[in-house]
Amino acid sequence: MNEIVANDQLGAFCRDTQVEIEGVSHGPFVGLTFAVKDIYDVAGHRTGFGSPDWLRTHGPAAQTAPVVQRLLDAGAHLVGKTHTDELTWSLTGENAHYGAPVNVNAPGRITGGSSSGSASAVAAGVVDFAVGSDTGGSVRLPASFCGILGMRPTHGRIPLDGVLPLAPSFDTCGWFARDAGVFERVGRTLLCDDAPAPTPARLLIAQDALEVAGETIAHALRSALDKVAALVGMPEPVTVGDEPLTRWIDYFRFLQGAEAWACHREWITREKPALGPGVKERFAWAATVDPQDITRARTRREEIARRMVEMLGGGTVLALPSAPGIALLRNSPPKVLDDLRARALPILCIAGLARLPQVSLPLAELDGCPLGLSLIAARGNDTLLLELAGRLMG
Amino acid sequence: MNEIVANDQLGAFCRDTQVEIEGVSHGPFVGLTFAVKDIYDVAGHRTGFGSPDWLRTHGPAAQTAPVVQRLLDAGAHLVGKTHTDELTWSLTGENAHYGAPVNVNAPGRITGGSSSGSASAVAAGVVDFAVGSDTGGSVRLPASFCGILGMRPTHGRIPLDGVLPLAPSFDTCGWFARDAGVFERVGRTLLCDDAPAPTPARLLIAQDALEVAGETIAHALRSALDKVAALVGMPEPVTVGDEPLTRWIDYFRFLQGAEAWACHREWITREKPALGPGVKERFAWAATVDPQDITRARTRREEIARRMVEMLGGGTVLALPSAPGIALLRNSPPKVLDDLRARALPILCIAGLARLPQVSLPLAELDGCPLGLSLIAARGNDTLLLELAGRLMG
Repeated sequence: MNEIVANDQLGAFCRDTQVEIEGVSHGPFVGLTFAVKDIYDVAGHRTGFGSPDWLRTHGPAAQTAPVVQRLLDAGAHLVGKTHTDELTWSLTGENAHYGAPVNVNAPGRITGGSSSGSASAVAAGVVDFAVGSDTGGSVRLPASFCGILGMRPTHGRIPLDGVLPLAPSFDTCGWFARDAGVFERVGRTLLCDDAPAPTPARLLIAQDALEVAGETIAHALRSALDKVAALVGMPEPVTVGDEPLTRWIDYFRFLQGAEAWACHREWITREKPALGPGVKERFAWAATVDPQDITRARTRREEIARRMVEMLGGGTVLALPSAPGIALLRNSPPKVLDDLRARALPILCIAGLARLPQVSLPLAELDGCPLGLSLIAARGNDTLLLELAGRLMG
Repeated sequence: MNEIVANDQLGAFCRDTQVEIEGVSHGPFVGLTFAVKDIYDVAGHRTGFGSPDWLRTHGPAAQTAPVVQRLLDAGAHLVGKTHTDELTWSLTGENAHYGAPVNVNAPGRITGGSSSGSASAVAAGVVDFAVGSDTGGSVRLPASFCGILGMRPTHGRIPLDGVLPLAPSFDTCGWFARDAGVFERVGRTLLCDDAPAPTPARLLIAQDALEVAGETIAHALRSALDKVAALVGMPEPVTVGDEPLTRWIDYFRFLQGAEAWACHREWITREKPALGPGVKERFAWAATVDPQDITRARTRREEIARRMVEMLGGGTVLALPSAPGIALLRNSPPKVLDDLRARALPILCIAGLARLPQVSLPLAELDGCPLGLSLIAARGNDTLLLELAGRLMG
């Protein structure tokens, strides 16, 4: 076992699926260490997916996921795999089988999930950056809770072969870093994009997302918003939803559920895995989603996507909270976790439904704990967000 | 068999791997028809790879390649699979097993390959657009020979799961169209990019690539170059290579050969397929590439990529010929085909080695046959090329 994994005080790294690979000896990332969420294949190693039953019933991967290979080819040093919520279907980071990684920036509190170990390791400074995945918020929420930079890219921009799926039409490869320069360079490597980014030309503030988060959060984000306005321009309030965002989450949930069941029904039916609380109920529900609801959700999703295309033309940036609050205390009761989910999803589903890139910036805090401000841009404007993040953090 | 495939006078469509799928009923591509090269998986159908032996030894695909699914999800109507050179390793379009599709814009001449059927069908107006693939020129060259638009995107920008590989570090998903509007919309759908493109700011002319093509070609491209200059700015001559481009092709060839052998050694060794002329010799050679040559090629490739990053900063566009001449006559002798390859690869390897996007525009002709002008931009500047193509063709 390598030193970092052996000495892991955070509970961030997977001991069952340990792996260490030196990157190439020349390249822009020589000297940088990273970790990957344990849903990314590494040739010759098993991928755990946050489930002891998954690990037991699957053999070693034949090939390394292209995303991991790109980082190794740039010279970065892979030091380990990190814990994920079970089958990635949770936002808490409290895995019933493997525990919850430590959030050094909010002691006694969860990291958020599902990319829990990746966020924990980056926040603690154990690695320079880490790769996670974001289907419904699994990078954006932990980035906010842990006080680090986190990116959900445009859906479809970064290949997901060799990555375990939850809901393919929402799944994205995201990443975390503390340093904005590293964050941008990792992004440009994963996005295969060296071109200068367009200039942000207009700032919108998502009033309805702020209302979901509540006045305390809106107040806590005020100076961060001023900082963005100073760079981009006078903020214009906008209502994102064409109906309450609490309705939008239904479209997200139906589609995510149907896709998750399509992806994993066979394995769940055959192996009858011992799924932990929350995840278990969600898969049971996913098996029952009404086809009419799915059809309706598909139609509404495309309408929402078109609405966002119009809203985000010409270098527009949309600001919103990354989360409806700071990290919850560890071992909060199920009702509190459900409430987090219910208030987080209306905010997080916007980028998911419309396939948009979203960056979470550690620019605020509340009660001494981190709180992220998020920026969304048009599909494909990923580097605009990365460059703007650099200017805001610099 | 559907009507288009049954009535195919071009020899562009695969009869053995026929497929037809209506796209969704709402979407921006409703009313548009397309075809895909027979290396893209469609669930429930076999993928032929231009080889009867491959077809015989492989079962139906489990899943549809995401690229194909994106187009169906946008409402486009898939009418069939198109012929490819065997295992995609040729530039001629003359498949020893399935013949050579017709090039309606250069009667009696080849389409070029390996995306031969896709180029043939688009040129003839049988489909609105078609998907091909480009490893060493397999979209750019047939686009030039057939007088249509063809795009090789930034390497890594479009996912290749469910697509048969030749040399993964060079393989890209490319596409053809006649209409520049369709061409751009297909590109934005495949690239997942709605953002406005950066403005082209500077025009370089690749003198050494023009010299490889020869004076007749340079002369034939002159008015096309003037057209680009009128939009982008005064052209500046530049020498692309840090050594003769004929040396660069060795790095390309060694890496391509090593990767092709790594991908297909097992199948070739086991099945001993009856490969056609040219392809057979190339695979035999690929098995013998010296590891030292591979190491050297890898190093040089990264130096070349860095050189191109510097050359192409700030919205720079590099103009060069798409091909060293017009389409060859059908059934030309092997020596003539080898000569085409030797003169085409120094031009085509630039984008491949440096992982850059390149568009081929049908803006010139010679002896009554089409000839393409190509534009290369920085990695990630794909939409810049697509928008510029629209303005140049409009």
